[in-house]
Amino acid sequence: MKIYGDMTSGNCLKLRYLTDLLRLAYEWIEIDISAGGTRAAAFLALNPHGQVPVVVFPDGRALAQSNAILRYLARGSDLLPDDPFLQAEIDQWLFWEQYSHEPYIAVCRSHMVYSGGSAQTREAWRVARGEAALDALEARLASRAWLVGDAMSIADIALLAYTRLAPQGGFDLAPRSAVRRWIAACEAALGLQPA
Amino acid sequence: MKIYGDMTSGNCLKLRYLTDLLRLAYEWIEIDISAGGTRAAAFLALNPHGQVPVVVFPDGRALAQSNAILRYLARGSDLLPDDPFLQAEIDQWLFWEQYSHEPYIAVCRSHMVYSGGSAQTREAWRVARGEAALDALEARLASRAWLVGDAMSIADIALLAYTRLAPQGGFDLAPRSAVRRWIAACEAALGLQPA
Repeated sequence: MKIYGDMTSGNCLKLRYLTDLLRLAYEWIEIDISAGGTRAAAFLALNPHGQVPVVVFPDGRALAQSNAILRYLARGSDLLPDDPFLQAEIDQWLFWEQYSHEPYIAVCRSHMVYSGGSAQTREAWRVARGEAALDALEARLASRAWLVGDAMSIADIALLAYTRLAPQGGFDLAPRSAVRRWIAACEAALGLQPA
Repeated sequence: MKIYGDMTSGNCLKLRYLTDLLRLAYEWIEIDISAGGTRAAAFLALNPHGQVPVVVFPDGRALAQSNAILRYLARGSDLLPDDPFLQAEIDQWLFWEQYSHEPYIAVCRSHMVYSGGSAQTREAWRVARGEAALDALEARLASRAWLVGDAMSIADIALLAYTRLAPQGGFDLAPRSAVRRWIAACEAALGLQPA
């Protein structure tokens, strides 16, 4: 399969974490968001919504939305257990990530890393919601090793991507010891260098 | 099962549409968001994220996130076909709804219906993204009856909830004939009065 993604995007990095862990073969096609790659006609033909990542399978079928792709590629593996309720709990975190985490953590990071902003010029309401998202993760992980069940799942992979990069968006992980322990465990399981 | 929801919330109405169609028995427990119901201690014990809807099953297990709940309750029905790729395409629209549609369409509606705002005082960037979301739906539905496959699925139910209420947020559906036809078809299938 081909993965169209931007290597600086957490949403795209999720797919690398998963595919590398499961040893799935893929060709990575770099789409530079900041150079307009997601607005090019050839890319919009793959995903009219103009968002990376997109996966294209050998039969030509395309699939977008990082967490939908994670779910599809992980089926049958230990990262998406067969139990329907465990899957539902994983889905719960996948949707929470896209609604209550990514729009704050990732957008603040984008503001500082790509738009020349500083921690002081971030939008206050986004900062507050990002801090709340990190607090929610800390509370969840204070008494458990992984977000769902008793092993790493695609819920962890989805949340890891932007959480480990949160300091680039002006968020402080130092006082969040459970999050830091969980990041280290995910990084070890995925063979990643510490962020 | 018990459904904790606010009857004015599209995210909660999705569950009513699905459960009524599938004739699933439930007890509805009204949680008034504007009266602080989602910030009450008893509710936070069910969902620490303070968001409706939440479903609680007879064994006490709770599940949050509207689209995760849709997916769990619809399994085995025609609304979530067994084919893994069709499921992945449905997931794609469920995630798109929460990331690229609801934060604009629903938040503009909330601004006008609950916060005393007008169409003119909506945030311009949210309006632009809401219009783009409706344009994307119109383009998708111009050549097909349903969002995924050839029958109604939970992708349609998830997108229907706030799309049919979009005019309450200052969005004009009149020039979007495919969206209007699709709304009417969904409403007929679900036994709903036209919005």
